[in-house]
Amino acid sequence: MRKFAGKDQIEHVIQAVIKLDLKPVPLYGVERTVIAVIGDERPVDEHHISSLPGVDRVMAVLDPYKLASRETKHEDTIIDLGDGVKVGGKKIAMMAGPCAVENEAQMETAAKAVKKAGAEIMRGGAFKPRTSPYSFEGLGTDGLKLLSQTAKRHGLKTVTEVLDIRDIGTVDKYADIFQIGARNMQNFNLLKEVGKTKKPVLLKRGMSSTVKEFLLAAEHIMTNGNSNVILCERGIRTFETETRNTLALATVPLIKELSHLPIVVDPSHSTGKPSLVAPMTKAAIAAGADGILVDVHPNPEEALCDGDQAIRPEAFEKLMIELKPIAEAVGRNL
Amino acid sequence: MRKFAGKDQIEHVIQAVIKLDLKPVPLYGVERTVIAVIGDERPVDEHHISSLPGVDRVMAVLDPYKLASRETKHEDTIIDLGDGVKVGGKKIAMMAGPCAVENEAQMETAAKAVKKAGAEIMRGGAFKPRTSPYSFEGLGTDGLKLLSQTAKRHGLKTVTEVLDIRDIGTVDKYADIFQIGARNMQNFNLLKEVGKTKKPVLLKRGMSSTVKEFLLAAEHIMTNGNSNVILCERGIRTFETETRNTLALATVPLIKELSHLPIVVDPSHSTGKPSLVAPMTKAAIAAGADGILVDVHPNPEEALCDGDQAIRPEAFEKLMIELKPIAEAVGRNL
Amino acid sequence: MRKFAGKDQIEHVIQAVIKLDLKPVPLYGVERTVIAVIGDERPVDEHHISSLPGVDRVMAVLDPYKLASRETKHEDTIIDLGDGVKVGGKKIAMMAGPCAVENEAQMETAAKAVKKAGAEIMRGGAFKPRTSPYSFEGLGTDGLKLLSQTAKRHGLKTVTEVLDIRDIGTVDKYADIFQIGARNMQNFNLLKEVGKTKKPVLLKRGMSSTVKEFLLAAEHIMTNGNSNVILCERGIRTFETETRNTLALATVPLIKELSHLPIVVDPSHSTGKPSLVAPMTKAAIAAGADGILVDVHPNPEEALCDGDQAIRPEAFEKLMIELKPIAEAVGRNL
Amino acid sequence: MRKFAGKDQIEHVIQAVIKLDLKPVPLYGVERTVIAVIGDERPVDEHHISSLPGVDRVMAVLDPYKLASRETKHEDTIIDLGDGVKVGGKKIAMMAGPCAVENEAQMETAAKAVKKAGAEIMRGGAFKPRTSPYSFEGLGTDGLKLLSQTAKRHGLKTVTEVLDIRDIGTVDKYADIFQIGARNMQNFNLLKEVGKTKKPVLLKRGMSSTVKEFLLAAEHIMTNGNSNVILCERGIRTFETETRNTLALATVPLIKELSHLPIVVDPSHSTGKPSLVAPMTKAAIAAGADGILVDVHPNPEEALCDGDQAIRPEAFEKLMIELKPIAEAVGRNL
Repeated sequence: MRKFAGKDQIEHVIQAVIKLDLKPVPLYGVERTVIAVIGDERPVDEHHISSLPGVDRVMAVLDPYKLASRETKHEDTIIDLGDGVKVGGKKIAMMAGPCAVENEAQMETAAKAVKKAGAEIMRGGAFKPRTSPYSFEGLGTDGLKLLSQTAKRHGLKTVTEVLDIRDIGTVDKYADIFQIGARNMQNFNLLKEVGKTKKPVLLKRGMSSTVKEFLLAAEHIMTNGNSNVILCERGIRTFETETRNTLALATVPLIKELSHLPIVVDPSHSTGKPSLVAPMTKAAIAAGADGILVDVHPNPEEALCDGDQAIRPEAFEKLMIELKPIAEAVGRNL
Repeated sequence: MRKFAGKDQIEHVIQAVIKLDLKPVPLYGVERTVIAVIGDERPVDEHHISSLPGVDRVMAVLDPYKLASRETKHEDTIIDLGDGVKVGGKKIAMMAGPCAVENEAQMETAAKAVKKAGAEIMRGGAFKPRTSPYSFEGLGTDGLKLLSQTAKRHGLKTVTEVLDIRDIGTVDKYADIFQIGARNMQNFNLLKEVGKTKKPVLLKRGMSSTVKEFLLAAEHIMTNGNSNVILCERGIRTFETETRNTLALATVPLIKELSHLPIVVDPSHSTGKPSLVAPMTKAAIAAGADGILVDVHPNPEEALCDGDQAIRPEAFEKLMIELKPIAEAVGRNL
Repeated sequence: MRKFAGKDQIEHVIQAVIKLDLKPVPLYGVERTVIAVIGDERPVDEHHISSLPGVDRVMAVLDPYKLASRETKHEDTIIDLGDGVKVGGKKIAMMAGPCAVENEAQMETAAKAVKKAGAEIMRGGAFKPRTSPYSFEGLGTDGLKLLSQTAKRHGLKTVTEVLDIRDIGTVDKYADIFQIGARNMQNFNLLKEVGKTKKPVLLKRGMSSTVKEFLLAAEHIMTNGNSNVILCERGIRTFETETRNTLALATVPLIKELSHLPIVVDPSHSTGKPSLVAPMTKAAIAAGADGILVDVHPNPEEALCDGDQAIRPEAFEKLMIELKPIAEAVGRNL
Repeated sequence: MRKFAGKDQIEHVIQAVIKLDLKPVPLYGVERTVIAVIGDERPVDEHHISSLPGVDRVMAVLDPYKLASRETKHEDTIIDLGDGVKVGGKKIAMMAGPCAVENEAQMETAAKAVKKAGAEIMRGGAFKPRTSPYSFEGLGTDGLKLLSQTAKRHGLKTVTEVLDIRDIGTVDKYADIFQIGARNMQNFNLLKEVGKTKKPVLLKRGMSSTVKEFLLAAEHIMTNGNSNVILCERGIRTFETETRNTLALATVPLIKELSHLPIVVDPSHSTGKPSLVAPMTKAAIAAGADGILVDVHPNPEEALCDGDQAIRPEAFEKLMIELKPIAEAVGRNL
């Protein structure tokens, strides 16, 4: 309560708390009165209480997410993509490929390289969200088919972005993992709809989302029945402009404490510079990431999308070799 | 180019620029070579050029938006809602009402108050995007109908949020202005679809969007044929936690320079505190805003959504009176 | 406490609280135990408590500042500069002049213009903090003398930045208000030393400081005996790059609630664009600011520092006229 | 130039550039005229040019720092502290110890632990910058002596913060490395004065400083004659509140590209959580850091400062062992 809150205001809040089926415990301090509340506060809109006269502030004690919380489920969630490919277990999940699906030759070269280097999951966008309406928006369903066919030929699983509720059925048919992009992390109806499927969802952190909001976005998927959520840290927006985003790598061990869900890191979109991809991939694995989502393009110069952040197949292959001792040092393998 | 870029790298970039139908002008400086480019760079993906070997950085000269730019259209856009209600003209457009449509009594009291105070447009959400899956999500179509009927009874126009492509038809039927919320500012398919209608769109700035991205989001609507875009500054996310968001009010005169589109300010969601609504509304009008979108609730204590940021009808009526001399001081009226 | 904190951990925290002469009140909830604490928590280092085993989080209830708080002193502080010039009263304090003192002719023209337009306080930097070591750093003591002489000749008071503890004596001799720049807002020894004088201090908000830290910086000055603190909102650093900083104007009414100290706004450094100075000055006054600190330069093109954000004398004179009705509308005068 | 800039405005800018001894190259584009400039732009105040009528924007091509740039000096700078202890070479420099020097017993236990684990440099603050004036401010000169004596006894080098120009002489006498804290990164006079000594300086990144400003702060030290600068990434301020700051780890490989100076990482202040220290230390080394600055306290519960972020000696010892294979994987040793 505010310093000069009257007795009637305090009483009014106490009554409001009781009405919500919670137990109020008023604490009369030296300068202020605090009304502690016992009970599950999650279903309560804190804005309701904070609008009452004389209230200074409402401070939530419980984390607002439940299904995503490690307090609810202790053991790590491991997501099984079939054929022995898993995300969240001892083996680090490498997801690699071009930003956008462009054509058969590009996909074939990329898939061969990804497979050869030892990755098991191929990425590639068929629907691209673009800041400018004048940019390439992806091949759509044709791109999906191309991704799926190429990946199958090489025994790779696939992850691809779904932008629009109307495309969920089609993407579900062709891909192994739905990707929800950073711009859609709070597109709640899209979360709800992928939550109604059983397919694993790779959920990218919104570029200005807190970790709490990130886990609440996962909760939106999980409350609809789909617990197969893979979190993806891809950098947040800060004042720094030398890198495309700021890779908040401490999110990895933090999420490991707060949640049982696996978390992967995207070193490509977070830095926007190919020269930073290798060191940040190493760092991500050292920090405990369960996987990596990385842009690999056979010919970045000719890429139709974000070519300036992709690494070449040779660089990826070299990186995979260099990652091994780091993975082992933290009790993982590749 | 980088400091130690070789001649062949420079030549390679020059050829790449020519291929894009642009004219390269190499400038050989003391420390570096710069390749100036003449022509319309908008359709070009700058990531393509920046991925070429030896390139240090690509710096765009032209603004990436065209239809939204004041360079393209000099005079202010005025949006006509019919019955003499306009946004962008001399008269400041006041949009007021509750955060969420709750029930008939609430709407009736709110509409009466809004009308009496002199506002012409009523706000009220039927579809609510909620950070937590455990919060009230709105009455849906029933809410739309209630908003529309109440507003009509009082001779008010309406603005309400559309969250989902599947609801565009219904919202189009019942509301006078589509609202695109901050979380959907880069939901490009939603922008595209409202762009295919003729109905005015109130586009809220994303909470971590730059002014450039904000205008590019408007461009997404405009390139689809709908030029009736009203921009809305509603605060950005910063490190400050005392207010819900940080109201970046300088955006108002800045947008006035860059664009011909009208811009309104939301003092409720940007500050999150009812006590800051009156001073920030005054400030917004003094800064040149074309309108205000404000939460007014007959009984904030009982509100199902964001009650702690709504002002009461009496406070709104008082504010409208206090705004008059400020509006006049900047050559406007209410 | 954490969800699975043991009884011994809870008891350990209770004992630690007692040792600090505070009264613990354990609240046993459904999921967690919360230990409420009664007493003045300000002298306690919360990091101490949060380091105890089993502690999840420490949430402070009291504001950490005391002397700067409106709860401590209800009435507005009015700072008297002598000769009828005050900051914080009904009359809005206009502080205008060039960013840097350059030469006699510049200062004379500027002073004449400032006086003629109706301002009572002249600004001008003699010691300039510069991001690059290759920039102009000010005239030093010669600049101080020039500022002081010119201002006196025109019956103006002066405000100028002090950067270095070693210059406090000299600046004290020549200026009427010490300015502490944004980069020094947490230079605690500098705050302490100006706190030992009786001279008014204009304290600029650090570019990434919260409002709480801003008031704590004022507290550093006040605990040393000097209560004559004028706060200055000058924009914070955000991801937006179109303006130099983001002017967080809601800070003005917020500070008015939290503190009794006067607050002024700097529309020049916060926006970095002369075209935004007039609208943001109007907005600042409409929001309740007690004064304005604005860059006015007789010839911005020839300015040695920040010429691109200064307005010309004619623009300042015009602005002063336009501000009158806005000041009156909020119960102030110029 | 702006789109509608006149011929005389263009000519005026061309003349202004010539006056600055630079060579203008006007490029007449489809929509705008761009005036390219050849020559060293560093000594030029870009605000001067941007204040000229008709100018839209000035875009700098050269990096503003010179001495700190890798373009100026190719090979890595290695800083020699004597007795075989170096920062920037193959061996990773571990700097460990308590946040604040408190008493002899604490220092003795800490030093023993630090030494035993294999670190060579001891940290410990004698002068503490504190946000609140009511917090412990350090033991001052007594603390310095205690740090120095204890470290010598155990054959350790020392690093400690200098806050005040008046303390430089004393700190110089007792410590091996000056630490400049984040809040003082732009205290230019302090930088200048430590720049006049020959002692190595550990410069912490300001909490809202860009990488460019960080390197310019180093440049302030270097232009005064001291090239022994060690950069320290310690997290930046963002909207995220779950961690104390956001550790921007990509700064490490980025700085390695831009500068020849060594860079170390502070996992304690950047995260504020002891449980995140080990994973982020591993990540920092995997990313290529030259050293680590970590809070180690024999009894965090009794720490007078930031106890909640310190790790215990046992945890530090374990961490040192776990770091070995990661250091080796990136071609370094401990």
